[in-house]
Amino acid sequence: MARLTRDEVLKKADALKNWGKWGPDDELGVLNYITPEDIVNAARLVKKGKVFRLGLNLDENGPQRGIFGGRWNPMHQMLATGTDAVAGKHDVTPGLRYADDAINLPTQAATQWDALSHVFLVDKMWNGYPATLVDMRGAHKNGIEKFASKMVGRGVLLDVARWKGVACLADGYGITVADLDATARAQGVTVKRADFVIIRTGQMEDRLARGEWGGYAGGDAPGLAFETVDWIHAKQIAGRLADQSPGHQVAARRARVV
Amino acid sequence: MARLTRDEVLKKADALKNWGKWGPDDELGVLNYITPEDIVNAARLVKKGKVFRLGLNLDENGPQRGIFGGRWNPMHQMLATGTDAVAGKHDVTPGLRYADDAINLPTQAATQWDALSHVFLVDKMWNGYPATLVDMRGAHKNGIEKFASKMVGRGVLLDVARWKGVACLADGYGITVADLDATARAQGVTVKRADFVIIRTGQMEDRLARGEWGGYAGGDAPGLAFETVDWIHAKQIAGRLADQSPGHQVAARRARVV
Amino acid sequence: MARLTRDEVLKKADALKNWGKWGPDDELGVLNYITPEDIVNAARLVKKGKVFRLGLNLDENGPQRGIFGGRWNPMHQMLATGTDAVAGKHDVTPGLRYADDAINLPTQAATQWDALSHVFLVDKMWNGYPATLVDMRGAHKNGIEKFASKMVGRGVLLDVARWKGVACLADGYGITVADLDATARAQGVTVKRADFVIIRTGQMEDRLARGEWGGYAGGDAPGLAFETVDWIHAKQIAGRLADQSPGHQVAARRARVV
Amino acid sequence: MARLTRDEVLKKADALKNWGKWGPDDELGVLNYITPEDIVNAARLVKKGKVFRLGLNLDENGPQRGIFGGRWNPMHQMLATGTDAVAGKHDVTPGLRYADDAINLPTQAATQWDALSHVFLVDKMWNGYPATLVDMRGAHKNGIEKFASKMVGRGVLLDVARWKGVACLADGYGITVADLDATARAQGVTVKRADFVIIRTGQMEDRLARGEWGGYAGGDAPGLAFETVDWIHAKQIAGRLADQSPGHQVAARRARVV
Repeated sequence: MARLTRDEVLKKADALKNWGKWGPDDELGVLNYITPEDIVNAARLVKKGKVFRLGLNLDENGPQRGIFGGRWNPMHQMLATGTDAVAGKHDVTPGLRYADDAINLPTQAATQWDALSHVFLVDKMWNGYPATLVDMRGAHKNGIEKFASKMVGRGVLLDVARWKGVACLADGYGITVADLDATARAQGVTVKRADFVIIRTGQMEDRLARGEWGGYAGGDAPGLAFETVDWIHAKQIAGRLADQSPGHQVAARRARVV
Repeated sequence: MARLTRDEVLKKADALKNWGKWGPDDELGVLNYITPEDIVNAARLVKKGKVFRLGLNLDENGPQRGIFGGRWNPMHQMLATGTDAVAGKHDVTPGLRYADDAINLPTQAATQWDALSHVFLVDKMWNGYPATLVDMRGAHKNGIEKFASKMVGRGVLLDVARWKGVACLADGYGITVADLDATARAQGVTVKRADFVIIRTGQMEDRLARGEWGGYAGGDAPGLAFETVDWIHAKQIAGRLADQSPGHQVAARRARVV
Repeated sequence: MARLTRDEVLKKADALKNWGKWGPDDELGVLNYITPEDIVNAARLVKKGKVFRLGLNLDENGPQRGIFGGRWNPMHQMLATGTDAVAGKHDVTPGLRYADDAINLPTQAATQWDALSHVFLVDKMWNGYPATLVDMRGAHKNGIEKFASKMVGRGVLLDVARWKGVACLADGYGITVADLDATARAQGVTVKRADFVIIRTGQMEDRLARGEWGGYAGGDAPGLAFETVDWIHAKQIAGRLADQSPGHQVAARRARVV
Repeated sequence: MARLTRDEVLKKADALKNWGKWGPDDELGVLNYITPEDIVNAARLVKKGKVFRLGLNLDENGPQRGIFGGRWNPMHQMLATGTDAVAGKHDVTPGLRYADDAINLPTQAATQWDALSHVFLVDKMWNGYPATLVDMRGAHKNGIEKFASKMVGRGVLLDVARWKGVACLADGYGITVADLDATARAQGVTVKRADFVIIRTGQMEDRLARGEWGGYAGGDAPGLAFETVDWIHAKQIAGRLADQSPGHQVAARRARVV
């Protein structure tokens, strides 16, 4: 497999980027693909009423180990405990005994969703806003709060690991368009405009089972190969998720950019 | 209105508590009322595909002002900025320019859901677990993580403020069973087993409009009167929410406990 | 009193700045004035063995109220308590029962010493280093850690409030060179090269007595008038401290810069 | 070397503890040994004016690695950067460009001084105060703030490693009374009432040189053998310090308590 050049990446970004497509003030991007009718249709698909939790615990034993960017695992701190309560420490307010706590976490802890302000293309973020609009006061454009009522739609799980017949794809494996299409076909689903596509590589379960995260938060990871960006673009999906943590589904290829 | 005595509260707690109903090891409580069929039925009710955001921003200008329990508003801290990126500070990893951030917040910040380990009855928490099972290492029973895949069902908004014809119920107003029933009737809805009942008092919008939280995080608040605990118990609902922050919907009455 | 212009400030900065005086790589500034002999002489002045604490408590009721720069008061969080210990929670390690805690504070909390990287002159910091050397990874030049073994010398208290016969100088009062000289004369001390000069305005005691910080962390404050910068420069002192919090001893005048 | 029993430890504690010696309300303990005259005499010993820094940096690469008690290394977070300043982000306040930051650290990070509320003897802390006086609101007795103006006196370095002719004592080595006396004799110093005795084991330098802390924050460490508690008690010293982090100078022996 030939190495990818920085030039190829920039060219592809230029070819596919949707900047301006929903107007110069947009901060939603491909979430704009979702229509109210899509949501109604998605709701109709609920057949069994089974609920699956996709996220990791917010946990001090989580995958962030300082590998990248000074991130840390969620820190849990108590503000009021039952031991204090039973020792009578809360009884200044008669009848009120309680527990209380706090968390301190990087927004990239555990499972999370990247805002459109997370990654820059040279000196710009999504829709062409200057990257400098993210300063010490936060993201003045493309903040994640813009998505608060927009993350609703049809989810499609593409279980690539199962289709490949493995518990977990190998670190650095690049999932191809052929893999995606074959997996969808085998499952009898069609990826449509406005879908949230969930890629299962098996890595999260593998690491949880081992009790050891290794390079999960910043090393190589199985994920979507570079070629899939055309597929994603053409499908007009609303989002893609995976069970590997970096969020960057082309981790292995990225390392090969020269 | 007669003052409520501590004895009355304890008696009522004793009469209504569901401890043991789902076995001695249960940590879900009334969420057990929800069946998969309820979820299928709830999904079928989606008609317009409109999404409403019920939560407040995680915001340093939020309602927590140190009124109660040493809580604070969410603190937002940057780990990587666009100003740094454009100044070339990220270019040790060629081609990777990004923003990153962190939050530090009490779990009672903004809008939140109380765990069954949050409030104690004398020296026990829900299902009879000893309160001392919440220590400096966290809640060893009834932690909120137990709810991760359980908060799905039918939501019923009871817009009491609208039914009363006011923008916002008065601070300390106790919503009665008659209010709840009349509001439901006027809206043409019936509260059923396993519903999530959302009470609208108007207080959150009022405070947001004023730009001033006042005692929102710990003072008097309009909310469910003490008598409604029988209604809640009998209805077998899965949860109740409100647009006033303390979570304690009988705030005004509580102050009258003698 | 005529208003100060921005141009006058820049001119004065240009006239008095010591950049380059101790070489292009220096990060100590006027602390270079202190010689080992000064320290020996300072030690000889100890006559009574009385110790005075000059700092405020690290306290959640401290002066930082979010007035400036998103700073907060020190947050104190427990990691291990005596209530947990006595409840047997530590006995996994036999015989070890203990308390433990943590603090989260802005470096400008309570009483503190400004690093030479704290304030910029246009786009440079002390000694001419680019301000951009302070990025998300910290201060790559002029960090406070450079002072770790350098803050030792003779301290001279100039009790201006006492000399003026008041408990506390008025907010915004500008202490003049005449005030400083008269106070020193009245006290029988001479300010010398390498001294740490401590100005007492009475404001800290006043606020502690009132139990109310007011604008202490960012409003007007009594402090050294602009004209004293020549005095400070000529005296070659090693540092100046005051019992008012902003650190900026010309707060009132600054507001008058046009 | 015979193993130490828990009973021997408790007997010794009972024999040597100073509880009540300075009255039932005392919170200073052996710091009471220091008189103003001791401080005057200590100051007279300054001959060369050389200053030595004994502390570690507050550093994210410090010795706390989560080995014990959920402690972490100091976290440094920026509130204002030079990159922001130069990008014009501060210019809402004309002429004010600055850097600002914050730290979040367990009080046992880097180098530190234990409060008398840190370790309990069964269910009591120093002077017999109940351990439960340390709750979620902090230490209501024996807090470290009581020491704020008390940590001044004569320091005596006992360089045991140098006397033994090694760069670093072996992990778990128990320094004996004979070692202490021989080291003092070789150095020509006499340990006196009210001294702060500093033990040098070489471990801190060793770990800094290796760039690897290992078990520094919670494993075995060279330190004072159990027998030295009699020596410490008899000498009436004001404090003991060491260049190994746990603070517990008998770490190796502790592991042998049966």
